[in-house]
Amino acid sequence: MEQRLQAAIRNIPDFPKPGIQFKDITPIFLDPELFRDLVKRFAQEYKKYSPDAIVGIESRGYLAGPAIALELGIPFVLIRKKGKLPAKTISHTYSLEYGTDVVEVHEDAIAPGSKVIVHDDLLATGGTAEAAGHLVEKCGSTPVLFSFIVELNFLNGKERLEKVAPCHSIITY
Amino acid sequence: MEQRLQAAIRNIPDFPKPGIQFKDITPIFLDPELFRDLVKRFAQEYKKYSPDAIVGIESRGYLAGPAIALELGIPFVLIRKKGKLPAKTISHTYSLEYGTDVVEVHEDAIAPGSKVIVHDDLLATGGTAEAAGHLVEKCGSTPVLFSFIVELNFLNGKERLEKVAPCHSIITY
Repeated sequence: MEQRLQAAIRNIPDFPKPGIQFKDITPIFLDPELFRDLVKRFAQEYKKYSPDAIVGIESRGYLAGPAIALELGIPFVLIRKKGKLPAKTISHTYSLEYGTDVVEVHEDAIAPGSKVIVHDDLLATGGTAEAAGHLVEKCGSTPVLFSFIVELNFLNGKERLEKVAPCHSIITY
Repeated sequence: MEQRLQAAIRNIPDFPKPGIQFKDITPIFLDPELFRDLVKRFAQEYKKYSPDAIVGIESRGYLAGPAIALELGIPFVLIRKKGKLPAKTISHTYSLEYGTDVVEVHEDAIAPGSKVIVHDDLLATGGTAEAAGHLVEKCGSTPVLFSFIVELNFLNGKERLEKVAPCHSIITY
């Protein structure tokens, strides 16, 4: 499946700014067979951790996350940027290269004591995923795995995340 | 299923601004049985239109859209706000109450001549969904159905959309 995934993922030069090679994962979702196999592959990996819930990071973490949660029969929890979730939230502020950002989760979305998978499409520096992990901890639960379709190895995000929980990705560049 | 959906959907007063009763659909995705039934219900409805693809509107249209596309074995296409899709896009500008907004789709995401379902979580005034329909037309394809989990009937979005294609929602308030 790795080969079919690599064929589907496009390299977009100079996006979102000059010098960055962006990995476009959107073609995966145009190929229902590939998408189905991806969901099954993630589900197989996640089962090893007996997770109680998957949290997905807005918005590309919503593309495969809910389908994997369905496959496993567990809740899918939305993590969003500040001010977007309507009910009462728990939030976590984290540092970016310049300034800070905030992620939020509904305070009642994760049952306390849950084992939680943090899912997103792509691991770059890992800042947002790490913040999502801390958000899970603030909910009284445990992040048991960070998981991605694609990892950009040269940005060392894995190293950073592994201080919190194991880190899994299907394709590494 | 309507009753279980109505029980799951929360009314959040004064969000995002005073006087607005926001319908929070996020608890649906915490209940895997309800989510699975919702996907099957949508798939059953969509089959009547023999669709070639589902387009989902960022970001809550990504929650159920990809799972429905998987169930039907057809492509899921992302519609996003301006500047977020990395490859070459087709865009459509539309009017808001104050000013304008832009939706975009990758120019190669929808095969020309496709029958396309436009999916989102909630129908309010229908401005964004209508723009998504026009975007599908600009791609040389036909929007065959607008479909939502929730419709806010008093905002008359359905009337507006039905000038372009039929309109379906599971819960109407």
